[in-house]
Amino acid sequence: MSILLEETAPRDGLQNETRLLPVAEKIRLIEDLVACGFQRIQVGSFVNPRAVPQMADTEEVLRRLHKKPGVIYRALILNERGLERALGCGVTHVGVFVSASETHSRKNSGCDVEEGLRRACTVVRKAKAAGLSAQAGVMNAFGCRFEGRVPEDRVFSLAASLAEAGADELCFADTSGLANPLQTERIVGEALRIFSLPLGLHLHDTFGFGLANVYAAWKLGLSRFDGACGGLGGCPFIPGAPGNIPSEDLVHLFHAMGVPTGIDLEKLIGVRHFLEATFQRSLPGRYGRSP
Amino acid sequence: MSILLEETAPRDGLQNETRLLPVAEKIRLIEDLVACGFQRIQVGSFVNPRAVPQMADTEEVLRRLHKKPGVIYRALILNERGLERALGCGVTHVGVFVSASETHSRKNSGCDVEEGLRRACTVVRKAKAAGLSAQAGVMNAFGCRFEGRVPEDRVFSLAASLAEAGADELCFADTSGLANPLQTERIVGEALRIFSLPLGLHLHDTFGFGLANVYAAWKLGLSRFDGACGGLGGCPFIPGAPGNIPSEDLVHLFHAMGVPTGIDLEKLIGVRHFLEATFQRSLPGRYGRSP
Repeated sequence: MSILLEETAPRDGLQNETRLLPVAEKIRLIEDLVACGFQRIQVGSFVNPRAVPQMADTEEVLRRLHKKPGVIYRALILNERGLERALGCGVTHVGVFVSASETHSRKNSGCDVEEGLRRACTVVRKAKAAGLSAQAGVMNAFGCRFEGRVPEDRVFSLAASLAEAGADELCFADTSGLANPLQTERIVGEALRIFSLPLGLHLHDTFGFGLANVYAAWKLGLSRFDGACGGLGGCPFIPGAPGNIPSEDLVHLFHAMGVPTGIDLEKLIGVRHFLEATFQRSLPGRYGRSP
Repeated sequence: MSILLEETAPRDGLQNETRLLPVAEKIRLIEDLVACGFQRIQVGSFVNPRAVPQMADTEEVLRRLHKKPGVIYRALILNERGLERALGCGVTHVGVFVSASETHSRKNSGCDVEEGLRRACTVVRKAKAAGLSAQAGVMNAFGCRFEGRVPEDRVFSLAASLAEAGADELCFADTSGLANPLQTERIVGEALRIFSLPLGLHLHDTFGFGLANVYAAWKLGLSRFDGACGGLGGCPFIPGAPGNIPSEDLVHLFHAMGVPTGIDLEKLIGVRHFLEATFQRSLPGRYGRSP
């Protein structure tokens, strides 16, 4: 099965950066990532601009972006206000997430898990009714930096409600970066038994387990993974949360195993150089470093 | 099955560092690692001191070391001269390696693979005859930085000769840091079918695939892995070869999966701090970083 990678640097990657990237540079970043071959890009989110200033100009980015046919430009939304904003600027694919942890839910969405789920299901239903494609997912599905272990039956129950609300695909997110490969194997294995929808993983790389988790999931047949160029990113509501899996390392892993991804690795390293120059620091991605 | 980790920082870790560590500091490092719970430590190598100056004082380290009963203090040897030196200072466990790559063999051992194998088998036989325990292994078993692909049948044929010479255990080393988890699974799976000796892996972490490789091998039943505190190390004869898998991340991976290793992680982070202070740089190990 071919690998479907979703590049999240313009959204999850940027949202933790204090230096605000001007719209023109965000557009350049997104178009450069499309030129690398990504078929799916998270371009921004419709959340409270005071809470996540970097995402305040998502409408403008989406309006000015030169969209390539066939590429999915996804925006994340948390509630109906976000959906209205998404519809107002021609978004066709949304991502809708609920946290499986009470503490994280309150910090991230300002409500408890139950209310977060109610909002997410409403948004999924309304997005579908408006003709959009909706990916829905569970944050902190592998544990929570604040609460520790997250019961797996809660994760599956949340995912089942999102599926019932009409989600086109499900995503399990290791928002706190706590997943290990044995746990990934267990959760993915169980999810593959329960759900008939396409499943994806959004993994962070706190402890260097990211690629081991990807490998464990891929061996079970999973083929949809998120990554962020350079390993940029984190969660603004989890102090010290690390970046996403560097997408160049994700691509390199599959290429090394003889599995095509459609991504041009050398071009992707060019994008990392742009991000490193922009944010004036070295990013964690390993591929393409000089010795 | 319990995990058996071999800590290589005092040997593979140090040999690439230009700052020579005084004998007293090497001994402190080794004793601190034993205090972390390691049952197996690579303490040095008997090689040409002009080629690897950091290892020139291995005799003195071994003589002055306060050895804890039950702990394996291993020294690496390449030839009969090395074995004589090892015997002269009371070494009980040796490591003997042959490279599977012609170019690397010439650079590392000054001879071709055939001659390297002849020497290694002689050393294994003589070490066994002298009552020592011999681990024998194949370097660049997963590919070569100079030559690219290394034929797997050559790797197994070299390992078979070493087993026949009397090796007590076999080790497959990813000296160039090129292994991927699918390849690891294939090579380990085949090795487990061919050999009845205990098998171990010595992995480097060039591309961040190290823990994924460990996981793939562990799932097949392998339980012996090398690591180096902090991820120190490299091969002095392969420019840009990266460090070993950080042993703290290796330990943390198993602990996160509920698999005991007998290692005290917090103490191990203390050793990393010592190495970082000594070599005045941040090491790649992930566990125990402040956010």
